[in-house]
Amino acid sequence: MDNGARKHRVVIIGGGFGGLAAIQKLKGADVDITIVDRRNHHLFQPLLYQVATTALSPSEIAWPIRMLLKHRPEVTTLLGSVTGIDAANRVVELEDGGRLPYDSLIIATGARHAYFGHDDWEPFAPGLKTLEDATAMRRRLLLAFEAAERETDSERRRALLTFAIIGAGATGVELAGAIVELARTTLRNEFRTIQPEEARVVLIEAGPRVLANFRESLSAYAKSALEKLGVEVMLGTPVTGVTAEAVQFEASELRAGTIIWAAGVLASPAAKWLGVEADRAGRIKVEPDLTVPGHPEIFAIGDTVTVLGPNGKPVPGIGDAAKQGGKYAAAVIRARLEGRSIGPFRYRHLGDIATVGRSAALIDFGWLQLTGWIGWWTWGLAHIYFLIGLKNRISVAISWLWIYLTGHRSARLITWGEAGSGRTGGGRAQE
Amino acid sequence: MDNGARKHRVVIIGGGFGGLAAIQKLKGADVDITIVDRRNHHLFQPLLYQVATTALSPSEIAWPIRMLLKHRPEVTTLLGSVTGIDAANRVVELEDGGRLPYDSLIIATGARHAYFGHDDWEPFAPGLKTLEDATAMRRRLLLAFEAAERETDSERRRALLTFAIIGAGATGVELAGAIVELARTTLRNEFRTIQPEEARVVLIEAGPRVLANFRESLSAYAKSALEKLGVEVMLGTPVTGVTAEAVQFEASELRAGTIIWAAGVLASPAAKWLGVEADRAGRIKVEPDLTVPGHPEIFAIGDTVTVLGPNGKPVPGIGDAAKQGGKYAAAVIRARLEGRSIGPFRYRHLGDIATVGRSAALIDFGWLQLTGWIGWWTWGLAHIYFLIGLKNRISVAISWLWIYLTGHRSARLITWGEAGSGRTGGGRAQE
Repeated sequence: MDNGARKHRVVIIGGGFGGLAAIQKLKGADVDITIVDRRNHHLFQPLLYQVATTALSPSEIAWPIRMLLKHRPEVTTLLGSVTGIDAANRVVELEDGGRLPYDSLIIATGARHAYFGHDDWEPFAPGLKTLEDATAMRRRLLLAFEAAERETDSERRRALLTFAIIGAGATGVELAGAIVELARTTLRNEFRTIQPEEARVVLIEAGPRVLANFRESLSAYAKSALEKLGVEVMLGTPVTGVTAEAVQFEASELRAGTIIWAAGVLASPAAKWLGVEADRAGRIKVEPDLTVPGHPEIFAIGDTVTVLGPNGKPVPGIGDAAKQGGKYAAAVIRARLEGRSIGPFRYRHLGDIATVGRSAALIDFGWLQLTGWIGWWTWGLAHIYFLIGLKNRISVAISWLWIYLTGHRSARLITWGEAGSGRTGGGRAQE
Repeated sequence: MDNGARKHRVVIIGGGFGGLAAIQKLKGADVDITIVDRRNHHLFQPLLYQVATTALSPSEIAWPIRMLLKHRPEVTTLLGSVTGIDAANRVVELEDGGRLPYDSLIIATGARHAYFGHDDWEPFAPGLKTLEDATAMRRRLLLAFEAAERETDSERRRALLTFAIIGAGATGVELAGAIVELARTTLRNEFRTIQPEEARVVLIEAGPRVLANFRESLSAYAKSALEKLGVEVMLGTPVTGVTAEAVQFEASELRAGTIIWAAGVLASPAAKWLGVEADRAGRIKVEPDLTVPGHPEIFAIGDTVTVLGPNGKPVPGIGDAAKQGGKYAAAVIRARLEGRSIGPFRYRHLGDIATVGRSAALIDFGWLQLTGWIGWWTWGLAHIYFLIGLKNRISVAISWLWIYLTGHRSARLITWGEAGSGRTGGGRAQE
């Protein structure tokens, strides 16, 4: 590097698993890094369902991005919302007019839940991607029991105590298990007119099995574990409509006071920013080196892209794939700066993992499958290991131990948007 | 009690310190109890400022009311918003049309912050009474630093890093100390263009001293502890206006990006529900036995009433006074059921307590004053003791220990109302 010459500028959009992994891998490289995210926090999404079901509080699974990067003086963290990319001039454009010039860009902007042409379902069947989604879902779940306690009509009460989850991927399965346990263990004996343990939890899946990305024997195990726990599993049942009161199927409907969407995701609008080709879920079709076609200086990684793995199948939309993508993009940037070149991205699938309530989990390492108790403990320890920082590890371990020993979930708060309008309990305290 | 005759019905409005103390004292009495609150949780208000300043998370200082009462089968907990009291027919009216008949009623509805004729100040100078107030204040504080990091104009940047707190009672003093520590310790080294430790924290008080309810020597100690910490204390400075950008005084103004209201409270609308006389702050003037004039079956306690203590001075609006009031009302109800009578309410002032940052606190037991380190440890242990349940005690103790050892505050999240509109970061995740 010449004296006075400016350093290679790397801009990273998104502080999720992929963006942070890229920064980690760029440590020591002769670059200036700017990371921009519209949230101030990195979120450990695999445990978001536990916030939605009152087991953990938001701060146990989220960390300020700038705190995580404080010891990296070459990294600048910005809170800002990206509205476009001027690829010709190599500038990221922010909502407030800010412009971030780059030499290399890493797009790690993830995905959000999506309704694929049925956006009108969203108000009745909210999804789960952000902390606000989780606290809103927590409020809906808890309010359903509160409303049922006050309801005198037995049919309406039964509907209020019916929880329908659409989509039996990992999120749907984990939510279903957690809601059953919330009702049967945590809320037991707390109501006077209802029996929370009579709540119906119905998991609805269009396809032929739950956890379709797992091998069939594990899908079957998960289904039976769910049913043993008390979840009603409906397979091969496409949803044709969602209203405020029911999930509709071709020839019937299920009346449910709480409906949750766990069925689909849509990539961030990065493909639109760049004007490049995307698949049906909005994902950019990147080159084998994770760059955007025609833009070797722009990498896109994680849930916002689609790329084939070594087995010829698409790389799955999981956190570990985003991490591997981030590390790979960083390695390419380093190699280029050093005049080296490296081969294409090779995704290595480490395994699939999901949990069903607090006594069964499924782990498939390919060479080893774990289920039941041993699966559950492995799942728990792995998740605590992957959390950032000793404080949060201790905190989550205590929260889980507490649930395990007493059934009490410690984050059973009904809170509202601060604007504070809305139904019972809105806004400022009267009491 | 005759066979088949119904039990004496006690309705309690409000699940704060007073309402819960009444229920505790009614344990074993031959009564049916219904408690109604518009929130699902009891809140430990003395630590709310620690949620607003990122040290604790909401679930560490709040508990579901029905969980606290699950082992009391004679107690029914309802989530509901009271809109009126039909005293002639002895019925509490709820917003959703529900009606709760009572034989004895305890009104424990507390107070909220108030602007006394200046409601237009509220959007610019929010107060702190609910968990939502606290997470909104947390967001404002953190966003001020984020905006300052992006601001290029030095004067505007200085204004963004100025935090004005109006009112130097316990809440104002504690917020001021905590904001200074957030800026100087927790955020240190995390920004690239600003130095968070240059933040100005200005505590503004119309009266002649801080913590006016403490003895003068302790007020002087608190002022000097605040100044040592780096807080600018402005005494004898009435506020004449609050705008989006500044606090205005008679002849000058202070430009501040963040303005916080800690100056006044207004009682709940209970006096209006009953059509009885109230003082300027909306508090019901109750009889010496805490009953509402003309209604011996209606008790009102805590922050929503005004009553004289044995020393001829008004009973202060603190949690312990509400607890004593709740216990007294319960004792009167028990005595009446047993055909006994007891004397008037005698408030016993146990002491005043406040903290200034993490190395000084003030405790005045009357016969003993503690300050400095010993005051701080006594303050900390007392607050942990008063939390409910082992889990939250452990959790808060670890959070404090962590701040003490590392300076890291664990709940530094910028979250939004779930409606999710608004500025940077609103709503659904893009990243």
